[in-house]
Amino acid sequence: MTQTISRRHLLAAGAASAVAGAAGTASAAQGKPKFDKIVDIIVVGSGFAGLAAALEARLGGAEVMLLEKMPAFGGNSAINGGAFSVAGSPLQKKFGIKDSPEQMLADMIRSGRGLSHVDLLKMVVNGSLPAYEFTLRHGVKYKDFVQHFGGHSVPRTLQTVESTGGGITRPLTESCRKHGVDLHLRAKMEDFVRDESGRVIGLVVRERYLFPNEKSGVLQTYGARRGVIMATGGFSRNIWFRKQQDPNLDERLDSTNHPGATGEGMLKMFAIGGAPVQVDQIQLGPWSSPDERGFGLVSQFNTIAGFPMGIMVDVRTGKRFCNELADRKERTDAILGQMENGKPVYPVCFTDSKGVAKAQTLKNGLKYGVIKQFNTIAELARAYGIPVKGLEEQVARWNQMVRSKKDTDYHRALDLAIVLDKPPFYAARVWPKVHYCMGGVGITPRAEVYDVMGRVIPGLYACGEVTGGTHGASRLGGCAIADGLVMGRVAADNCLKNKPVTL
Amino acid sequence: MTQTISRRHLLAAGAASAVAGAAGTASAAQGKPKFDKIVDIIVVGSGFAGLAAALEARLGGAEVMLLEKMPAFGGNSAINGGAFSVAGSPLQKKFGIKDSPEQMLADMIRSGRGLSHVDLLKMVVNGSLPAYEFTLRHGVKYKDFVQHFGGHSVPRTLQTVESTGGGITRPLTESCRKHGVDLHLRAKMEDFVRDESGRVIGLVVRERYLFPNEKSGVLQTYGARRGVIMATGGFSRNIWFRKQQDPNLDERLDSTNHPGATGEGMLKMFAIGGAPVQVDQIQLGPWSSPDERGFGLVSQFNTIAGFPMGIMVDVRTGKRFCNELADRKERTDAILGQMENGKPVYPVCFTDSKGVAKAQTLKNGLKYGVIKQFNTIAELARAYGIPVKGLEEQVARWNQMVRSKKDTDYHRALDLAIVLDKPPFYAARVWPKVHYCMGGVGITPRAEVYDVMGRVIPGLYACGEVTGGTHGASRLGGCAIADGLVMGRVAADNCLKNKPVTL
Repeated sequence: MTQTISRRHLLAAGAASAVAGAAGTASAAQGKPKFDKIVDIIVVGSGFAGLAAALEARLGGAEVMLLEKMPAFGGNSAINGGAFSVAGSPLQKKFGIKDSPEQMLADMIRSGRGLSHVDLLKMVVNGSLPAYEFTLRHGVKYKDFVQHFGGHSVPRTLQTVESTGGGITRPLTESCRKHGVDLHLRAKMEDFVRDESGRVIGLVVRERYLFPNEKSGVLQTYGARRGVIMATGGFSRNIWFRKQQDPNLDERLDSTNHPGATGEGMLKMFAIGGAPVQVDQIQLGPWSSPDERGFGLVSQFNTIAGFPMGIMVDVRTGKRFCNELADRKERTDAILGQMENGKPVYPVCFTDSKGVAKAQTLKNGLKYGVIKQFNTIAELARAYGIPVKGLEEQVARWNQMVRSKKDTDYHRALDLAIVLDKPPFYAARVWPKVHYCMGGVGITPRAEVYDVMGRVIPGLYACGEVTGGTHGASRLGGCAIADGLVMGRVAADNCLKNKPVTL
Repeated sequence: MTQTISRRHLLAAGAASAVAGAAGTASAAQGKPKFDKIVDIIVVGSGFAGLAAALEARLGGAEVMLLEKMPAFGGNSAINGGAFSVAGSPLQKKFGIKDSPEQMLADMIRSGRGLSHVDLLKMVVNGSLPAYEFTLRHGVKYKDFVQHFGGHSVPRTLQTVESTGGGITRPLTESCRKHGVDLHLRAKMEDFVRDESGRVIGLVVRERYLFPNEKSGVLQTYGARRGVIMATGGFSRNIWFRKQQDPNLDERLDSTNHPGATGEGMLKMFAIGGAPVQVDQIQLGPWSSPDERGFGLVSQFNTIAGFPMGIMVDVRTGKRFCNELADRKERTDAILGQMENGKPVYPVCFTDSKGVAKAQTLKNGLKYGVIKQFNTIAELARAYGIPVKGLEEQVARWNQMVRSKKDTDYHRALDLAIVLDKPPFYAARVWPKVHYCMGGVGITPRAEVYDVMGRVIPGLYACGEVTGGTHGASRLGGCAIADGLVMGRVAADNCLKNKPVTL
């Protein structure tokens, strides 16, 4: 029952068993010490945070390995809407919009409802402009306008020309490749390898992994002289875990996320003692559609056109029922209140032909029938069973408020609002979906991972959606890209400074 | 750098290091396998949950060891108010109060604001009457009345004759001693010992521990053939960790809890992979006083007299500002809204001479000046700088509403309310304190601990405040005793059924 084993690997195995709850996955680490490959820094995850970290670390002179468990790079970031909130961008200046990191900070604190970790938020807002410039250097292109997203006090949200996050993840992946980051697809992090001091010195990795087959592929052990950076994203698609945090987020609720957003990276950090922070703060996207799966086409239509350029109404009355530019939590709570006998009564969001000018998903939305076109307000009302008179009165009232520049009903900022008077009108049904995990593992402003006792776990960094505290109770739109890119770079910069261990 | 070590102890050490983040505390477990003592079941913590678990397990025939890190048994339960909510108690029947587990469940679900794990709540409400009978068998005595606590739809809260939780923890400790539970004071659980399958088979324990000196005492290793039951309570006194969950709960906010409520038991479960559940759901007690430290004398005065028999007013106007019998979260939020330029404006809660009949802490409260006595409402108003006319009008309005049995201002249930007309009047200032952690480690309805992947950690059980999910966003008053006693017994019953391992 006894065997010879190095003390160093003792700890790797222990960490593994804590996650597994059984000896199953620990075998690779329980053997003799043997790294199949050793680099300076291993980054796990290839979304905004992971790509920014890998690139920043590589440009800082480190040997970098980047692991992505799915068969394509980009993670959930690749299917995100490509909206990036930046404080004080050149585009804001061009359009005469005054903004500052302090103002963006104040907006994010308000949205966080008192739960935000302000030290982390400050890093994000101060780093947003440098991160934007970083993306320009790596070939990202933005449209020539600035959007006003819900909860922001001014227009500050830029938009990739592709209108998706892929407009950022693809050039960053290319840049990683060009600069010599060791890129691994279908490589799933299984366990941490830690030395006897508790420092993270590597990972057990399942190469040739075929999501979601947990037995696929082969185990390899990789060493990281300077540290491991976890950028593994949220757990919106982990139904068991999200139900533990909020029993309402059950099987009946869809998610905007890609299927790989299952959160094991975060869970494995918890299981080696990483501090859980605000894990039950889970954001639902208020702009998605019950008529299609996942993020779909309507989410972007509503974000760019329906909400800022149109209005959303209760189909039972034709009346508005909230500020369509409130932050996500306020809108989601308002929409989820549209129930009758425990069943959703899907609201309808619509704008006119002027309002859809920038809505890139309009064409496909119409093609797949999730966005509909109408020649008159009455026609629109009848199609959704809305009282015609109620809706016509609401539109007249809205147009009057836009002209007088004052929303006396819901106090919405009207700087971008338009009168709805140019047919055709375009409409979509709305129902929230699980979108973003504000909670995660606790980190310092240097992206070091806190353990449950408030100490830093040596050699371990985390950034992006896998971390908790930054956004408190509700993240503002466009701030996931800001958070991921900024904190990915911060994690890399600090990991680079970490004294290397000899492996 | 290699050494001979049993594979079994490999995992114990790994678990230890994950908590420590360094090799410091793991030394005892890293040596040769050697248990200083082996029993069937080890219970950690001696509050309601731990004592109920130890006693239930012992009466079920197990050899039981109970560990308490502090120099006295009872934990935070000993200084709790001694209020026990029971669905369908004989005392309710005696006073003609209709109640059922279903009705108590509905009240608790409402208070939980959609976050409650209903499967756990059902265990608690269904077990409340048997748990009450269990306490009677072990010598606990209750007063001959039933209280109506905030958020409950009917009076269902019993009160120990001592008016503290010590009225329960003392007799249960005595009963443990009498029945042969191996009781250890100043014995702090340091680490889990796990076998190669991941099963918890024992603990590394710091005996002769002197709180809060983490280097005091000596390490011992104890085996548990059937399992370990964690009943280690909440983390209200762990300021670093509670600030991670809610930055508002900083050093400036007092706690009603005893100094030992630092949550290491929960944190150590997280660090071996126990699932964190709703950890940022932290309850503030709305009835405590800014004029004394900790739970103090005013908390019970307000619970038994000030709130149910009196009213609470804004000192700037003399007007009520909330339902004094709303659940704790609603009252706390209302009180914390009494701010001016970021500084608290302490409200005042008061009743008359009839209202204080059952307030056992009145005498000492007056002696220490945290409760004050006044001959007239005007005198009371002047003492706190309240506008006299405003307060007199409020009292007249209140008395009128009590007579007409309808609170048209805040819809409070008036079944126990009294007109305030018999001087002297008794008053105290009010400000919330950190009181209870709804969140904690995830468990099944059998009190088995979930790991982060949704599997049960073999040999590990948890009960009481250390667990998460039962109470969702807000626990109702009197339900901590119900939860602790019921789930302590449930944990013991299931641990007893666990197939023993040979150690």
